[in-house]
Amino acid sequence: MLDQLLIIVFGVILVSLVTAYLIGKNIAKQSDGTPKMKEIAEAIREGARAFLYREYKIIAIFIIIFSLLIYFFLDTPSTPTNEGLFIAISFVVGALASLLAGFIGMKIATISNVRTTEAAKHSISKAFKVAFNSGSVMGLSLVSFAVLGLLILYVVYTYFGLSNEILMEVLTGYGLGGSSIALFCRVGGGIYTKAADVGGDLVGKVEKGIPEDDPRNPAVIADNVGDNVGDVAGMGADLFGSCAESTCAALVIGAIVFSSLSGLIYPILISVVGIAACLITLLTVRLRKENVEGTLKQALVVSSVLVAGALYYFTPKWLPSTFEISGVSYTAMGAYYAVLCGLVAGLLIGLITEYFTSYKNKPVQQVAESSKTGASTNIIYGLALGYESAVMPLILIAVTVFVSFYFAGPYGIALAALGMLSTLVIGLAIDAYGPVADNAGGIAEMSALPSIVRKRTDVLDAAGNTTAAIGKGFAIGSATLTALALFFAFVTASGLTTIDLLSPIVLAGILVGGMLPFIFAALTLKAVGRAAYSIIDEVRHQFKSIKGLMEGKAKPDYARCVDIATKASLKQMIVPGILVIFSPLIFGWLFGIEALSGLLIGALSSGAVLATSLSNSGGAWDNAKKYIEAGHLGGKGSDVHKAAVVGDTVGDGCKDCSGPGLNVLMKLMAIVSLVFIPFFIKYGGLLLG
Amino acid sequence: MLDQLLIIVFGVILVSLVTAYLIGKNIAKQSDGTPKMKEIAEAIREGARAFLYREYKIIAIFIIIFSLLIYFFLDTPSTPTNEGLFIAISFVVGALASLLAGFIGMKIATISNVRTTEAAKHSISKAFKVAFNSGSVMGLSLVSFAVLGLLILYVVYTYFGLSNEILMEVLTGYGLGGSSIALFCRVGGGIYTKAADVGGDLVGKVEKGIPEDDPRNPAVIADNVGDNVGDVAGMGADLFGSCAESTCAALVIGAIVFSSLSGLIYPILISVVGIAACLITLLTVRLRKENVEGTLKQALVVSSVLVAGALYYFTPKWLPSTFEISGVSYTAMGAYYAVLCGLVAGLLIGLITEYFTSYKNKPVQQVAESSKTGASTNIIYGLALGYESAVMPLILIAVTVFVSFYFAGPYGIALAALGMLSTLVIGLAIDAYGPVADNAGGIAEMSALPSIVRKRTDVLDAAGNTTAAIGKGFAIGSATLTALALFFAFVTASGLTTIDLLSPIVLAGILVGGMLPFIFAALTLKAVGRAAYSIIDEVRHQFKSIKGLMEGKAKPDYARCVDIATKASLKQMIVPGILVIFSPLIFGWLFGIEALSGLLIGALSSGAVLATSLSNSGGAWDNAKKYIEAGHLGGKGSDVHKAAVVGDTVGDGCKDCSGPGLNVLMKLMAIVSLVFIPFFIKYGGLLLG
Repeated sequence: MLDQLLIIVFGVILVSLVTAYLIGKNIAKQSDGTPKMKEIAEAIREGARAFLYREYKIIAIFIIIFSLLIYFFLDTPSTPTNEGLFIAISFVVGALASLLAGFIGMKIATISNVRTTEAAKHSISKAFKVAFNSGSVMGLSLVSFAVLGLLILYVVYTYFGLSNEILMEVLTGYGLGGSSIALFCRVGGGIYTKAADVGGDLVGKVEKGIPEDDPRNPAVIADNVGDNVGDVAGMGADLFGSCAESTCAALVIGAIVFSSLSGLIYPILISVVGIAACLITLLTVRLRKENVEGTLKQALVVSSVLVAGALYYFTPKWLPSTFEISGVSYTAMGAYYAVLCGLVAGLLIGLITEYFTSYKNKPVQQVAESSKTGASTNIIYGLALGYESAVMPLILIAVTVFVSFYFAGPYGIALAALGMLSTLVIGLAIDAYGPVADNAGGIAEMSALPSIVRKRTDVLDAAGNTTAAIGKGFAIGSATLTALALFFAFVTASGLTTIDLLSPIVLAGILVGGMLPFIFAALTLKAVGRAAYSIIDEVRHQFKSIKGLMEGKAKPDYARCVDIATKASLKQMIVPGILVIFSPLIFGWLFGIEALSGLLIGALSSGAVLATSLSNSGGAWDNAKKYIEAGHLGGKGSDVHKAAVVGDTVGDGCKDCSGPGLNVLMKLMAIVSLVFIPFFIKYGGLLLG
Repeated sequence: MLDQLLIIVFGVILVSLVTAYLIGKNIAKQSDGTPKMKEIAEAIREGARAFLYREYKIIAIFIIIFSLLIYFFLDTPSTPTNEGLFIAISFVVGALASLLAGFIGMKIATISNVRTTEAAKHSISKAFKVAFNSGSVMGLSLVSFAVLGLLILYVVYTYFGLSNEILMEVLTGYGLGGSSIALFCRVGGGIYTKAADVGGDLVGKVEKGIPEDDPRNPAVIADNVGDNVGDVAGMGADLFGSCAESTCAALVIGAIVFSSLSGLIYPILISVVGIAACLITLLTVRLRKENVEGTLKQALVVSSVLVAGALYYFTPKWLPSTFEISGVSYTAMGAYYAVLCGLVAGLLIGLITEYFTSYKNKPVQQVAESSKTGASTNIIYGLALGYESAVMPLILIAVTVFVSFYFAGPYGIALAALGMLSTLVIGLAIDAYGPVADNAGGIAEMSALPSIVRKRTDVLDAAGNTTAAIGKGFAIGSATLTALALFFAFVTASGLTTIDLLSPIVLAGILVGGMLPFIFAALTLKAVGRAAYSIIDEVRHQFKSIKGLMEGKAKPDYARCVDIATKASLKQMIVPGILVIFSPLIFGWLFGIEALSGLLIGALSSGAVLATSLSNSGGAWDNAKKYIEAGHLGGKGSDVHKAAVVGDTVGDGCKDCSGPGLNVLMKLMAIVSLVFIPFFIKYGGLLLG
């Protein structure tokens, strides 16, 4: 018999999914404009579908192989529970849930883009509604699926009679599944979107002198597909992973501490409260005085306040008033403070990220100014800005670690991560809104609609760029906290009570781990370059071989560009992917669990800084260019602008592939380690005896 | 009465200093060419002197304030030994010894540059001899002073009856003194040299279209002064610091373990054996078949083999056959293996650095190739190269840490650092040779000598660029190991036996520490930019206000450029300097010794990677440009070349200021922590109670 609490939880999720379905249905009903618009939207949809299907094929192979690997290496025939099998099942379910959520996100985004354009013919607020609602569908369904998948596994495994501790451990496979998909979507998708963008621009804008989003450019559809692939599916899968993984981490630690159902599934309840709070918030979102940015930020603040209030009320009811971890006593309210700490830190990191990457503020303007003396100074100031921008977020994370640990031990760190992610529905709605608005602008351009339409979509797009920065800050912050939470789950589950920093193998692990994010960044930066080359070749080839293309008399072969970008990006992500998944496995196998702990901390410590600085440098270069294009310092076409374009191109791969890819690296390394603990216990430390 | 062993040690140092004096005397006797050459050389000498004197004034203030700080905060009136006073004295002596060594290096370099030009009129081998001999003077005197200073303090303090443990602890002030000077020379000097270089080039080469080293450029003397200030004095002070600090680290740990004199001063004996081995090596150095690079590398290998052989013989005589640290037993031969491990790792790191930064190899050629598609790809590939190049060095350091710890515990890590530095005389000779050859070329150009002279100095310069890469690899590798050795000395002296990675305050320390190198890099990168601006303004002003300058009829005011660069660089180094010195002090004061340990490890782990990647990216960009200038991919003046110049300019600050500055950061943070242990014990952990 299901507990009453579980029924309420399933109820909330159901409401959330039905809401998402209804919003989606409502969007689909709206007009998708002229035949020309329909045609373009269909091409983007087709391209996105083509990318997804090809990616799915590879992911399918990966899932099969990796679940066999899990089954083979983690099955312990000595115990009657068949852990390996259960972990493998969790893994597959996690992967499928993430894929499904991503699919829905992509689907709604590629339906909404053209409808946003059409709505923009009438007014900004109508267009805003379509774009934001589309984001809400993504947000609601993604978080709901993340929680639902875990809950179903929980119920089924309980039915099979697994003990709480084993149960929570086999659930970690779910996080691993979600995170693996994030690797494909963030890194593969990131390479795709930047290759199409950079490749298309270099030939179209630079060599041929035609404007951005010009339908004569064979890569233009691939570019628009890329916005969906990278920014919608990639960001979604990344945050799905954070959500699933931080929940898993909290469950693993909590399993040792709590026995009541509400205590055990408290981490899941946080997310459910978050979903409910965000549902209420969605009712309040109305564009006022065309202040898009203010509206979006307000939604984030409202949902945060709601979550904070609700959990203040519920936490003492769900958690025992005091509980003990490793002999230290903590209180329920302590757990609440840990959640709150994460929630606040997330907001602050988001705002700091915005400060450093919005062209309304001094840092980006300084980068723009520095372009006056050429591309080199633009690069130097952009790099320096990225480095500087990591200071406050890292301090905030360090404070969060300390404070949340003070209030609730290692459990607190996982709770802080969940707190940061509790408003994820709204966060994702804001994130997914951006690329839809961006696409809408592209469609307006390509369909030669009146310039007022493009102007309106530009207003939406500009706000999307700002809030995207907040989303990126969240993504990095939550990834770091999630990775830390997973690290503590890993340590707890391994039975380690201390890890001595003075042990040479731990130190060696930290040194090697600290270097991994850099090699990952190098691999992905070059991967973008290589994939872009194949697009450049193809676009040049089409301009040469298709007669009448420049004159607008013939149509380019969009599908080939989509196809080439798809193939190139999936090929280029193999090496970085292997690095992320196998480095903890091999290191732990050769040197044992303590060395692996060092590796994880090293990777996390330099990874968090590098991810932040690459993302923010990239964002700042992008916006410095936009600042100049807005008419400052000589405007578009000036030498200053040319210098800024150099930085923008460098930053493209940094901000949309390498930087966010590092989020996945930190989390995936940690969860691979967590899932494979039985393997390390059995075979680990080969070289050290 | 002095022990016999000490007499031999003093003897070796005396021989070394006398040799240096005689070589220097011999160089000074040689002809310094035409009146024009004399004039230019005098201007460079004058500029260097001006920089040094102004720097000395600031350093003097710094030394006075900081030694008062040491005296005030570290004096423990409860014990009769007046530790604070002794540490302050050690500090002052360390700083003065470093300054003296740097002064001699600069002096001989600015005497030899013009004499190398003059010798190049006759043959390459004659010119090589002058330049290399000048380097040897620097190498011999620097290492000798480093050891001599420590020894004299040792003898004096023993005379005052300090116990071994206290004695070794107060000696750490010596390392701190040396390292503080390194901060001024590496960071201040780095900003100076790059500001003069970039500023001079941007106006001279880009705006006015006059060639490099053209005497009409008002910044040309400042640029040549910069080569001496940054590459001779800066590199020298950095390595003086490494040498002094790793010896101090080893002495602190060894003081607890050994009681015999030879055991106690074994770390010093390693350096003395190194000096002797290098003296012998110097006798073998002859340029054969104009293969400069081969000759220089051979010297390095010969001295390494000699050191390895000599220590194999002496170590069992000096160290007790077995000794114990924290209850674990080690052997004398184990200590030898630790030294050997560092020696080999140093050579390998040097060669890897060369591989990644020499244009004879694929990585740099790839960066050059990437310039074909513009400045952005040049930047992306250069950044990626830097990141990649850190992989092997970091793995080598991790292996060294593990192996040397295995053979001799924490003592082993200090020994490995000393092993890596044991061939420092030759290493410095090679390093200091480069800027002399570079200066010689500049003088040839400015004095309008026959082109054959410039060609010959170019051959010397090219080899110098390659071997400089090896030197840089050594500098970073030894800085990392030295910082680790200091960390272990810090931990040992604090009485900590474990540091728990799972403690939240340690983790928070690691996270904050991991971010410090990035903020340091940001500050120094921007500092170079700002200092360069002031040079640009001045150079533009002179071209405008001095009539007949462009026509060669009037002389520019070189001194003003030197003066402005000096002021700007010293001003710009204040903030990064404060960051480095005060962040460990404040962090330890607020959060205590364990948190500080985390901070140090975090800074070290990301600092080592960032230092390596910044240095190597910079080196690669520089050489990619040179590869194109050598006639590849369209050669000088082509679009490809222009793209490569962007990377070169970005890389200037990275490779000569921020990257090497991070060496100092890692070491200085660690030794500040070590020296201020009594302060942390008394006042530390303010916020945590």
